[in-house]
Amino acid sequence: MFNVNAYGATSATDPLAPLTIERRDLGPHDVHIDIKYCGVCHSDIHDVRGEWGPTEYPLVPGHEIAGVVSAVGSDVSKHAVGDRVGVGCMVDSCRECDNCQAGNEQYCLPGNTPTYGGTDRDGTITQGGYATDVIVNEDFVVRIPEGLALDVAAPLLCAGITTYSPLRHWGAGPGKRIAIVGLGGLGHMAVKIAKALGAEVTVLSQSLRKKDDGLRLGADDYRATSDRQTFKDLAGRFDLIINTVSAEVNVNHFLRLLRTDGTLVNVGAPAEPLPVQAFSLILQRKSFAGSLIGGIRETQEMLDFCAEHGIGADIEVIAADQINEAWERVLKSDVRYRFVIDVSTLG
Amino acid sequence: MFNVNAYGATSATDPLAPLTIERRDLGPHDVHIDIKYCGVCHSDIHDVRGEWGPTEYPLVPGHEIAGVVSAVGSDVSKHAVGDRVGVGCMVDSCRECDNCQAGNEQYCLPGNTPTYGGTDRDGTITQGGYATDVIVNEDFVVRIPEGLALDVAAPLLCAGITTYSPLRHWGAGPGKRIAIVGLGGLGHMAVKIAKALGAEVTVLSQSLRKKDDGLRLGADDYRATSDRQTFKDLAGRFDLIINTVSAEVNVNHFLRLLRTDGTLVNVGAPAEPLPVQAFSLILQRKSFAGSLIGGIRETQEMLDFCAEHGIGADIEVIAADQINEAWERVLKSDVRYRFVIDVSTLG
Repeated sequence: MFNVNAYGATSATDPLAPLTIERRDLGPHDVHIDIKYCGVCHSDIHDVRGEWGPTEYPLVPGHEIAGVVSAVGSDVSKHAVGDRVGVGCMVDSCRECDNCQAGNEQYCLPGNTPTYGGTDRDGTITQGGYATDVIVNEDFVVRIPEGLALDVAAPLLCAGITTYSPLRHWGAGPGKRIAIVGLGGLGHMAVKIAKALGAEVTVLSQSLRKKDDGLRLGADDYRATSDRQTFKDLAGRFDLIINTVSAEVNVNHFLRLLRTDGTLVNVGAPAEPLPVQAFSLILQRKSFAGSLIGGIRETQEMLDFCAEHGIGADIEVIAADQINEAWERVLKSDVRYRFVIDVSTLG
Repeated sequence: MFNVNAYGATSATDPLAPLTIERRDLGPHDVHIDIKYCGVCHSDIHDVRGEWGPTEYPLVPGHEIAGVVSAVGSDVSKHAVGDRVGVGCMVDSCRECDNCQAGNEQYCLPGNTPTYGGTDRDGTITQGGYATDVIVNEDFVVRIPEGLALDVAAPLLCAGITTYSPLRHWGAGPGKRIAIVGLGGLGHMAVKIAKALGAEVTVLSQSLRKKDDGLRLGADDYRATSDRQTFKDLAGRFDLIINTVSAEVNVNHFLRLLRTDGTLVNVGAPAEPLPVQAFSLILQRKSFAGSLIGGIRETQEMLDFCAEHGIGADIEVIAADQINEAWERVLKSDVRYRFVIDVSTLG
């Protein structure tokens, strides 16, 4: 075991503060990553504050990790010292269930090991990427391709794959009309990726406040959901709607915007159940679905795709001591579009 | 115009009674059908009682029509006098929209013409199959294959196609585990068809009261949803669940029974919205969907499939003057499994 500097929570209510945490010694299949940047995801706040279930403290959040390999275990074959790598929302899985075998470790049936706040194979609680170093099994480490800077790549490990996976699964591409609900961390990635996939992209946001940004990011159209006319104008228009908003929305209004056989996919998870009218689904064979991050192979595919298309996150780099302020701004949706911690400031 | 004997409603609250209604004269593309049997669908009651929106009276319900062609218009090429034919839930559609062009007239974008209570092309209100004769455009008339008796075929025109279509669309077949929620008119057809398609079939019913029937109809397993153990035992088991129940059910409980990428399809439409937990969908990329009857081509395919596999509805044949009593029994789910009116008693 060895100590590393981190920034984390000692309770659900206290501000985050500098901490020292232990990392396990390098095992034969482990990679030691010198963390350079870590993205700030809204889930970090939910998890640390116990809003998605009970949490043990201290807890170091962060699952959008980008860094450089500083050491590898004796049996590591996938990565080498000096490689630019990333770690996302999971650091292990059972590897044996049908889903793991199919490369869908995000849907591991016994449950994968989350990057922070999960129970690792050795019984310890995992700690995330708001830290200087992390030890991760090589199979859950992905390559960050040349041409993709580490700071703008970090948010791809959660915000990128969370939107890429459903866009690919439900066939976003040329000839398809896609709507993205919400232009936040996930939404801005969804716009870039859907556009690069060749789809026609519309942003549906509460107001037109970020319209210029949306169009700059690649959207073909940008409409306000506060304007009832939007739901009349766009009725029956979309093949796929990706809802990135964790707040409650009127699902039936969005279902109305789908074409026959269209799908509304939630990647955000509001705490309260969403009332769905069966007729909203039946009359044109529509679906309401959900999607969770993506598998490791797909995460690599997404990074390669983003590098090829010059896609990184739009970020605001912060120092470690700005994290609490950044969280407050995340809660107010006052970020364009992802905070990324410069981990050198944790030294 | 000519008069025919029928049984229908003069208000939302009075019992059904004998009526005389007008049918249009045979047009060049029309088929005159001598109705032999008409199934009694729960929708008939909803529609007549104005529970799905305002209704004009008098209204003759019935959209599970089986009969024999007694005359054809000058340009009819698809049917001939003496043919055994059926008519389901629609008698026309725009024929021009993408869905009609694709053979999905049930999803006609301007809206298809329902068999009763709809506005026909000539501006008259359509009247259904609780009647001795009907005039229908040849394109909306299907053949009832040899070997399928008209009485047991009648319910296939709604209950059959409503379950066949989603079973086919979502890939029911060998190696797939399918659950059917509710063993009523739709549910009993779903069991027979899913089994004939080669799937493993489980019935999920409130109680075990109809278990023997369920197994006889072809179910491999039969579980009570009133028993909480059912939801533990069968968690993550099914590829597809067809919910035939129009009453409110706890969607999240049923979603838990799906495998990764599984779909829960509602073919019944409860009036109240169903609360769906986003996490129920997200964690294993599940879908909640709806499906409406089927297209004309698919309805023919279903009838051919049923004839090939010796599948008809389990029916109780009634005389016209038993309709009101039958409706009361439908409302109490006291029918195994479909009432079919012997239209000769209307003479």
